[in-house]
Amino acid sequence: MLMELMEAIKKRRSIREYLDKPIPKKVLEKIVDAGRFAPTARALQPWEFVVITEPTMLRELASLTDHGRFISEAKACIAVYCQDTKYYLEDGCAATQNILLTATSLGIGSCWVAGDKKPYCAQVSKLLNVPDSFKLVSLISLGYPKSKKDFKVIKKRDLKEIIHWERF
Amino acid sequence: MLMELMEAIKKRRSIREYLDKPIPKKVLEKIVDAGRFAPTARALQPWEFVVITEPTMLRELASLTDHGRFISEAKACIAVYCQDTKYYLEDGCAATQNILLTATSLGIGSCWVAGDKKPYCAQVSKLLNVPDSFKLVSLISLGYPKSKKDFKVIKKRDLKEIIHWERF
Repeated sequence: MLMELMEAIKKRRSIREYLDKPIPKKVLEKIVDAGRFAPTARALQPWEFVVITEPTMLRELASLTDHGRFISEAKACIAVYCQDTKYYLEDGCAATQNILLTATSLGIGSCWVAGDKKPYCAQVSKLLNVPDSFKLVSLISLGYPKSKKDFKVIKKRDLKEIIHWERF
Repeated sequence: MLMELMEAIKKRRSIREYLDKPIPKKVLEKIVDAGRFAPTARALQPWEFVVITEPTMLRELASLTDHGRFISEAKACIAVYCQDTKYYLEDGCAATQNILLTATSLGIGSCWVAGDKKPYCAQVSKLLNVPDSFKLVSLISLGYPKSKKDFKVIKKRDLKEIIHWERF
């Protein structure tokens, strides 16, 4: 399935309720593939993507978070990690956004759960067997949305409110 | 012009040499518009976008940076700012990535110049009249690419190298 860029950008929104329908491995690979085409400072590409699909692992992962309890109901979760470079957070966030947009274009709901700055980073890394030297950037829950309304475009701050010409 | 999401994701790359051809205001608005549809923690939408097109301003801006000297030759530059929220960098980076992809889909070259963590943030804010309370996330230079080769897909680390199933 192909989706036009602006449609994917506008339809992407946080979706936390999922159907009990597995996501094929090939689809998950396609979603992760989008991550590696993100921009990266100094061409370092510091990212690594851990894809979790085992229900017990998803439940354990969910239980470690505060605002990510719904990960237990997700069909997959991608943990985005980066080596601790100066711009690891920028690189990891750009990769995360590519992943969210690609999931949207494939009809898959997603939600960005914070990793960086969260007290549960060390526990998540331990669970996923990730060396301490890597930084957790985000946890991306994935699943086919329960409601078809879920891809409705959200109202955001108006363009004229956020755009400034030449000076603030 | 419409472009499929994955094509935009793959074609996006840092482009630093531009034609002497202005970018219509409507096109710049469309590019900034993509930014406001980014995901945002706690729905705060902390972003503000300053669009610089005046050649003297672009030259002054370029001269303040280290790795952004080519901004002086750009036809526009978008300074992405956020209020100092806990996840301002995540939100601002997701917006930046939406902007880079949308520019690509419109045939416009772009380059992400770092803002956050750079010693020149205060000087850039002073130049653009942005209050000290806002954080500079990125400077995005824009222009029609000088070379048609510029949208060639870059080789990145292989998918099988960066994807990990269940555990690292």
